[in-house]
Amino acid sequence: MSAQAERTEQAGTRERLLKAAAQLAYRDGVNVGVEALCKSAGVSKRSMYQLFESKDELLAASLEKSAERTLSVVMPPAEAALSPRERILYIFARLESQARVTEYQGCPYLAVQVELKDTEHPASRVARRIKVELFEDFFRTQGSLGGASDPETLARQLVLLFDGASARAGIRADDLHGGLATSMARLLLDAAGMG
Amino acid sequence: MSAQAERTEQAGTRERLLKAAAQLAYRDGVNVGVEALCKSAGVSKRSMYQLFESKDELLAASLEKSAERTLSVVMPPAEAALSPRERILYIFARLESQARVTEYQGCPYLAVQVELKDTEHPASRVARRIKVELFEDFFRTQGSLGGASDPETLARQLVLLFDGASARAGIRADDLHGGLATSMARLLLDAAGMG
Repeated sequence: MSAQAERTEQAGTRERLLKAAAQLAYRDGVNVGVEALCKSAGVSKRSMYQLFESKDELLAASLEKSAERTLSVVMPPAEAALSPRERILYIFARLESQARVTEYQGCPYLAVQVELKDTEHPASRVARRIKVELFEDFFRTQGSLGGASDPETLARQLVLLFDGASARAGIRADDLHGGLATSMARLLLDAAGMG
Repeated sequence: MSAQAERTEQAGTRERLLKAAAQLAYRDGVNVGVEALCKSAGVSKRSMYQLFESKDELLAASLEKSAERTLSVVMPPAEAALSPRERILYIFARLESQARVTEYQGCPYLAVQVELKDTEHPASRVARRIKVELFEDFFRTQGSLGGASDPETLARQLVLLFDGASARAGIRADDLHGGLATSMARLLLDAAGMG
């Protein structure tokens, strides 16, 4: 095999492993076995360990990779003509739609951290960073743009709301019907002077 | 050994297993091994299986048992001279105190359900029921007593807030400083006409 073909094959193997890790860890939890991961990806353990130091590293990389999808599923398109308030509410409306999807099990970044119970685990670190970059920073920026009285506190409130709503939907304790999450977000925005 | 002494010994063994299961599952997650549980309780596997059908049943029973402690830690004493609004806020103030405890890893009932990803697991069922009985029913009742416009929705909002706050504190994403949870609860109570 040429060096070029080998690189292409390795990239394909890597993609399949990342996808399998994201899917199985989300569905079954972070304790999913290396055996199951490799089987699902159609990859040998030897190939896996040539690409990833450990299952922990694979898990971390798969979360990193999944951020793109999360972005496209729950975040408003950058080009949409929406006000800061509408951009924030968009996320909660998307979350309410997600809650009705059979496979939905809540925010993958929260789940990983709850399951690992180890803030220093490589996957916990990635999950924490993605949550800050995708959500907390976004809420703070939109809050500032929308003239919120305290964008920092508003961002903390909104991520808390997001985590509570996604967790309860994920465990099937609440399907968020009646716009439960968006109506709570509206209250927070009103109180922050973004009415 | 007399039948009486044997019953006392069995009860002690049972208590130790329930305590070990609650502690280890909370600290390390539901995948904690039977080996580790028995070792921590100072009990043989044989004794464990004489008392509990399976690890799953032990886990479920340990959550059931832990409800008493949860009640005493976060709920207002029944005899306290507090208004319905104050009773509700008491819970969130207690949660904010808990968030500063080093060993705090969030609500055990939420964690178990997030980790198991199986609503039919015996421990998930117990966790779900306790959450409804201890929190959702309590919030609804206090809402009704305090004249909330929609006690059902208020209860859903407050449990969501509780889960979001406890989850974020549990993963060390937010220490709830500045009364983050109580101030959000106040907004919800005000909006429900319980100002």
